[in-house]
Amino acid sequence: MDQLPKCDANYVPLTPINFLKRAAKVYGNRLSVVHERTHFTWQQTYERCLRLADSLRSFNIAKNDVVSVLAPNIPALYEMHFAVPMAGGVINAINTRLNPNHVATILRHSEAKVFFVDYQFVQLARQALQIMMTSESISSKLVLPSVVLIDDIESPTGAIFGEWEYEQLVRKGNPGCIPYEVQDEWDPIALNYTSGTTSEPKGVVYSHRGVFLGSLGIIIGWEMESEPVYLWSLPMFHCNGWTLAWGIAARGGTNVCLRNTTAKDMYRNIAQHKVTHMCCAPIVFNILLEAKPDERREISSPVQILVGGAPPPASLLEKMKPLGFHVTHSYGLTEVGPALVCEWQAKWNDLPSQDQSRIMARQGINTVALAHMDVKDLSTMISVPWDGDIGVIHPDGYLEIKDRSKDVIISGGENISSVELESVLYSHPRVLEAAVVAMPHPVWGESPCAFLAIKKNSEGKSDDVKEADIIAYCRKKLPHYMVPKKAEVSSGDVIQPLFSKKPVAEKAWGCSPTRVPSSHAHAEESCAMK
Amino acid sequence: MDQLPKCDANYVPLTPINFLKRAAKVYGNRLSVVHERTHFTWQQTYERCLRLADSLRSFNIAKNDVVSVLAPNIPALYEMHFAVPMAGGVINAINTRLNPNHVATILRHSEAKVFFVDYQFVQLARQALQIMMTSESISSKLVLPSVVLIDDIESPTGAIFGEWEYEQLVRKGNPGCIPYEVQDEWDPIALNYTSGTTSEPKGVVYSHRGVFLGSLGIIIGWEMESEPVYLWSLPMFHCNGWTLAWGIAARGGTNVCLRNTTAKDMYRNIAQHKVTHMCCAPIVFNILLEAKPDERREISSPVQILVGGAPPPASLLEKMKPLGFHVTHSYGLTEVGPALVCEWQAKWNDLPSQDQSRIMARQGINTVALAHMDVKDLSTMISVPWDGDIGVIHPDGYLEIKDRSKDVIISGGENISSVELESVLYSHPRVLEAAVVAMPHPVWGESPCAFLAIKKNSEGKSDDVKEADIIAYCRKKLPHYMVPKKAEVSSGDVIQPLFSKKPVAEKAWGCSPTRVPSSHAHAEESCAMK
Repeated sequence: MDQLPKCDANYVPLTPINFLKRAAKVYGNRLSVVHERTHFTWQQTYERCLRLADSLRSFNIAKNDVVSVLAPNIPALYEMHFAVPMAGGVINAINTRLNPNHVATILRHSEAKVFFVDYQFVQLARQALQIMMTSESISSKLVLPSVVLIDDIESPTGAIFGEWEYEQLVRKGNPGCIPYEVQDEWDPIALNYTSGTTSEPKGVVYSHRGVFLGSLGIIIGWEMESEPVYLWSLPMFHCNGWTLAWGIAARGGTNVCLRNTTAKDMYRNIAQHKVTHMCCAPIVFNILLEAKPDERREISSPVQILVGGAPPPASLLEKMKPLGFHVTHSYGLTEVGPALVCEWQAKWNDLPSQDQSRIMARQGINTVALAHMDVKDLSTMISVPWDGDIGVIHPDGYLEIKDRSKDVIISGGENISSVELESVLYSHPRVLEAAVVAMPHPVWGESPCAFLAIKKNSEGKSDDVKEADIIAYCRKKLPHYMVPKKAEVSSGDVIQPLFSKKPVAEKAWGCSPTRVPSSHAHAEESCAMK
Repeated sequence: MDQLPKCDANYVPLTPINFLKRAAKVYGNRLSVVHERTHFTWQQTYERCLRLADSLRSFNIAKNDVVSVLAPNIPALYEMHFAVPMAGGVINAINTRLNPNHVATILRHSEAKVFFVDYQFVQLARQALQIMMTSESISSKLVLPSVVLIDDIESPTGAIFGEWEYEQLVRKGNPGCIPYEVQDEWDPIALNYTSGTTSEPKGVVYSHRGVFLGSLGIIIGWEMESEPVYLWSLPMFHCNGWTLAWGIAARGGTNVCLRNTTAKDMYRNIAQHKVTHMCCAPIVFNILLEAKPDERREISSPVQILVGGAPPPASLLEKMKPLGFHVTHSYGLTEVGPALVCEWQAKWNDLPSQDQSRIMARQGINTVALAHMDVKDLSTMISVPWDGDIGVIHPDGYLEIKDRSKDVIISGGENISSVELESVLYSHPRVLEAAVVAMPHPVWGESPCAFLAIKKNSEGKSDDVKEADIIAYCRKKLPHYMVPKKAEVSSGDVIQPLFSKKPVAEKAWGCSPTRVPSSHAHAEESCAMK
């Protein structure tokens, strides 16, 4: 048989832009994006994206040009995921937690043509642009991006920054414009910056094909049915919300935008919009679990949570269930996008809850959209046996990451997994948060050091739990060499993201700057860039 | 930004073979294929496919060589969907309802290298091969395929046909063989023959990429969760079971094989294996609904049915629900594979049951894996307004096919849809089956003629419903010009597929041979080839 000839009738480049076109046609009158008093239907979202795409062309955005944006999870950021590629450009959603130096580095490295800035991040953006001007004025290649302000859509602040305001661009664009037609599914659609812990941010390019397949993979792996109501608790600047910025359109869903992931705002939106799905890191579990009574709202039907960034501790999983949250564990990285889902198997339904939590803490299996998953030796790139130290593939094919290689603490020749140790610390009834790092030790080379946030007791006190109690607890549960030599306990009054502890760790214990106090991929990223 | 370079780390050809590899790893001990007393796990299925692929190489199967098979829905046919492409070949599952002439045409046209034949179809295969020899002996290009018998795996009949038996090939193959590696996702994986109503069969080539995307599209459109138990009521020779021959592996499902779609066998397997999903044409609804009491089994949890080939009549939909069947309508064609699914929308949940049935009878919307769906004028290939006569796209984007163009009856200049007329006939409480064709008419040019199978009344009689009753019924429901001028009523004792009536129609009424008594795509195919 001969090779098939490709033609328009049998070959179309894969692109998630078609998800939006399809949603506008099929779910045209259904809510697409909701944010406080702002509501759009899929037909409106499509039209707004066409208008914005048209306006972007007046900035001379051409194929493969980068459009950067610094914004929280607001409707504008969602729309830009379609509008920018519909103008032929590449969207670059910048982590809002970065410092001006890193933002400047990203703008310079990506050669961004346009820079959209939410009104809350004007100062950060201004500083970044100043750094660019200062450092680049000595070179001949000074190219500053055009700047567009994204003001509050409901109550404009009137902030003055840049040449245009977002809604102005939407209004002036022609909704009848013909969007850029994807010629090659390998064309870039998004640029996401990640980093190790010490290096400059690294750019990762996503193609139309890649995010099309990634979206379908996560939809199937998570078993997301049609018309989900999706709460944007996961920042869109993390792998474009694990590619769900496009995926929600594929399912005709409703995007519930969220400026801040406070307990009150999350519960309010979940109850008000009957949220069915959300994604987050385990740290958000703490925010939900520790909410004050007046911040909570009853959840009428189960909310599916896809959790990633760090394995969800068993103790948290068991507490989330009674509140109405059904957790699935997922794993990915900026370089790949969503990759693994810990797909639940019916045979596990009758296991004791502790075993279920252990199984669910595993990173899982490759989605159907990812061809292969393996653990290799970094030096030789040869597959290791399925019982490797850092990444373990269980006999059932599910991957468990015991630790990131740089988080392994080597104490007297013994490898200690900071994640394993953290998971024991989490099992302590009074531990709210736990983070383990390596500290230098004159005898053992390195020793584990724990940072802990302690929950209040019934008398409102948290200082009754001492370092010695924690160390004694670990001695009962762990081999001697794994027990932390130091444990810094503090009040769990204020929920602090784990990564905020890194400076403390460095100051107090002189910890190696190549290690961070958690294997939390996203936390680590943010941490490294702070 | 520059174009991305493709490399092994970021680009892998799409192929459904990976579904099997993944199922073997993740669902290794789960039931993959069940047929009566035969049970395989996914690990076993993978090993058997590797063995068969290895054996196929001894037939010198190389890239793009065709392997034909004539078999019902048995484990061997399922395995061949993976084993043949794992040897680099192209699977060609032949419709078992064809006559020897057509089978010979397909074998010749596809230049099949190997021909697998189930023991029940030895006579058909033998005749086809004889036709090939006779007609080809005069040409110099006589290439007969090697023949492999597929005997009954549980109770071998000892039939002697061909050089090998299927299980022999599985046994002698090396399970450690390295399967053919797909170099280009555009490589062919399957060859399916279809036809219009008068022409020779036409070959349709499916690529690895095409069936990969098609499978994911139908999984998402049908909302098929993981670990389905799938009853093979739809022949695998129809678009490879609407690509689900591969799709079930993608979901780690269990394939319940079925040699014959009798009511008894279907109910027995549904109850025994707790079937969750099945596909079929509406004719199978009749088989299930008209089952005798001793053939029925109670259905403990809902069975999802994807129905295609013809719009499901409202009257049947309403009867299926109480039995435990939840119906979704789908539309496809051999040239495309599964294309549309009538995705249910929450806003329809509160509509009256009659409106729901009308909505569900629409062909639906393109799956996320299909970029575009449209209705065009055949002569100009220009899109028609969304209110076209034959294909209608409703304002909500859902397609309804009023009729196939060749089934439209033109009577005195008025277009009459045979499908619309059939749907009115189906609403008659005593009509079991209805088929409408055009008959020549001296005044009107053409007139509708109905063929009806009548259900028995409480006294076991069906001859109390006369032609005049049917015509009177239609007069009450339809404009005068649409009422059938003739209605042939017969007993509904024996369930007969609609297409079996075609010869009657031709003989009795001299109906145009370009029309068939149903818009049923699969029935039509079979009909045309008989």
